[in-house]
Amino acid sequence: MINGSIPDIIVGRLPRYLQALQRMHQEGRHTTSSKELGDRLGYTAAQIRKDLSQFGEFGKQGTGYSIPFLIGQLQTILKVDRMWDILLVGAGSLGHAIANYNGFANRGFRIALIVDNDPNKIGTKIANFVVQDASQVKALLFGSGIKIAMLTVPASNAQAVAEELTNAGIKAILNYAPVPLSLPKGIHVEYIDPLIQLQHMTYYID
Amino acid sequence: MINGSIPDIIVGRLPRYLQALQRMHQEGRHTTSSKELGDRLGYTAAQIRKDLSQFGEFGKQGTGYSIPFLIGQLQTILKVDRMWDILLVGAGSLGHAIANYNGFANRGFRIALIVDNDPNKIGTKIANFVVQDASQVKALLFGSGIKIAMLTVPASNAQAVAEELTNAGIKAILNYAPVPLSLPKGIHVEYIDPLIQLQHMTYYID
Repeated sequence: MINGSIPDIIVGRLPRYLQALQRMHQEGRHTTSSKELGDRLGYTAAQIRKDLSQFGEFGKQGTGYSIPFLIGQLQTILKVDRMWDILLVGAGSLGHAIANYNGFANRGFRIALIVDNDPNKIGTKIANFVVQDASQVKALLFGSGIKIAMLTVPASNAQAVAEELTNAGIKAILNYAPVPLSLPKGIHVEYIDPLIQLQHMTYYID
Repeated sequence: MINGSIPDIIVGRLPRYLQALQRMHQEGRHTTSSKELGDRLGYTAAQIRKDLSQFGEFGKQGTGYSIPFLIGQLQTILKVDRMWDILLVGAGSLGHAIANYNGFANRGFRIALIVDNDPNKIGTKIANFVVQDASQVKALLFGSGIKIAMLTVPASNAQAVAEELTNAGIKAILNYAPVPLSLPKGIHVEYIDPLIQLQHMTYYID
């Protein structure tokens, strides 16, 4: 298994497979097929088999996949067989919603630290966290092991904040600000922008 | 231009092109090249040219693209040259964050109606909206022209609510609940799930 050689588009589908398998497991199921998994997710069975075959041999012709086994394998491949601490940057209404969301832990993540640069927000409480001073982020992250940040700051600040985070040792940023980030190679950025997805759907509406 | 023949993956990139062009326009720029647009978004120039050529001839070899012209063309193609009203389902903390977000209007969308099924939330105010009773959604939507919904309800309710919305005339759903929806052909669904994107990034973190 040579990580670098697997197309990112395939890596990006694995979390969806994992999510569907975990849901089947919650439903009390123990085995599944590439056909069933594909039906749930809107992919062909061949696509599922081809994607998974990039990472190893996980099922048997005729008997299909063991759901708990495949969940374990995907968690290992995606490195969510551990708990990742997250830095949340921005304590606005979206930051509040994220801090109060209780679906992270059972999927390998937990908010560990919240920072903001607004003096009126620093020191206030969100969920179980006291909002810390964003200007101290490097010191706060030092020795914390936190490598992932969720960015919920205004678009105008996002690039500067992302650069600070990179300097402070952050390796991956989930960016909610509607602006592309330009960061050094090796820093991974994913975007959440509902407008992009809304504009994608209107193409199809008559 | 035959809409049905253009791969969805290409359609999905157009909103990103539009966003980058609008940003350039805000910066006072008037022309750009496929190279510059690609550099901003992390695509090759050839990819940009190939994608755009699916929809027409928008630039000239050597002189590049007129930014305002290409913005107008993309807005027409994506049908965001008009204002789309949105139904927001769910008045929890995420619903609040969405209702208070002020970035929709300049990109072709506005929240027009908020509903929830919680008696404690119905009748309360969020931003400029009074939360309406979700059980009345069909009557509320009748004659409204609203075709798009944003769904911020618990995962356990999402499928049932989505079916109700479909029956009430909704054609596109942006689903924040971490569960795939199974809906009739012709209903477009997009998903926003930060966990999927976080799990994608951890693959690359050492």
